[in-house]
Amino acid sequence: MAHITLPAELPGIRGPMAFRPETAAPINELVNVLLLAPSTLSPADRELIAAFVSSQNDCRYCHTFHGAMAAHHLGGDEALVESVKCDFEHAAVSAKMKALLAIAGKTAVGGKNVSADDIARAREHGATDLEIHDTVLIAAVFCMCNRYVDGLATWMPDDADFYRRRAAVVAEHGYVTASVTRS
Amino acid sequence: MAHITLPAELPGIRGPMAFRPETAAPINELVNVLLLAPSTLSPADRELIAAFVSSQNDCRYCHTFHGAMAAHHLGGDEALVESVKCDFEHAAVSAKMKALLAIAGKTAVGGKNVSADDIARAREHGATDLEIHDTVLIAAVFCMCNRYVDGLATWMPDDADFYRRRAAVVAEHGYVTASVTRS
Repeated sequence: MAHITLPAELPGIRGPMAFRPETAAPINELVNVLLLAPSTLSPADRELIAAFVSSQNDCRYCHTFHGAMAAHHLGGDEALVESVKCDFEHAAVSAKMKALLAIAGKTAVGGKNVSADDIARAREHGATDLEIHDTVLIAAVFCMCNRYVDGLATWMPDDADFYRRRAAVVAEHGYVTASVTRS
Repeated sequence: MAHITLPAELPGIRGPMAFRPETAAPINELVNVLLLAPSTLSPADRELIAAFVSSQNDCRYCHTFHGAMAAHHLGGDEALVESVKCDFEHAAVSAKMKALLAIAGKTAVGGKNVSADDIARAREHGATDLEIHDTVLIAAVFCMCNRYVDGLATWMPDDADFYRRRAAVVAEHGYVTASVTRS
């Protein structure tokens, strides 16, 4: 049971977002810009960063849902998503993505853990300032969302199909639209 | 030196915010709603939560600036702000604030650390669902901001007067206006 009274039918972050639409709106806008808006990083890569950080933070709702988002963008390749969550250095992603995932993982532990060497590795594989910025901010944003979801003890469904269906809706309508019209 | 090229004259979070206004706008809106908009928690109490979490996360820019914001709202009582950062259980704040600070500190370590007992303690001292929600979200938001500021290795001035002056500007104009017009 959640720590406060939330709409019973909405799982994960959607409960507190419906409870407090004034804060849900800017959070959705932020996530939409970072994960779905045009970028030199693909939506799949950005969702992989979100899912990886959420997995590292042990937030089951966020890493399951954003893992489903990444798989949706990857044509259903759930095995790749799992391999990134478990051991990204040996996953079938680009050298640039491995460098960005390393930065994201260190940001999640604490910002000061990101070293000049981590940044140099990303640049060596072609990462731009904007890509490095967005990687750090995506990691930071999910450190927020993970704590919001688990700090209020929200519930979540166990059925993997729930997340697959929801991912298809959000990929089509965006985080802003989907959350505002459905909560 | 910051990890990416940022406007040299802007310290802390203001550098990356000017670099990426598309993400700065929703972050400022979120912080404005949580820290400055009308609430049953005073602006001083909410800034104390932000400063405490940032201190616990060792983000010097954020805990110095939000500490200055709290002191501004408290008529300049910087000693109280320091006592909250160092040992809030023995600081001269209400029993309700101590309970909320305890929830904030646990949220910052990880959402699952917030227990039913922590929530019961806050309710016992009169905290509402909305106050508990906002406490968890303020803590989560500063876990984001702290990682954003330090993950990009931003710089900051040492002069305490800089933060006092800036706090007066933001308290008057809000986070949204101040950051958008000055970056």
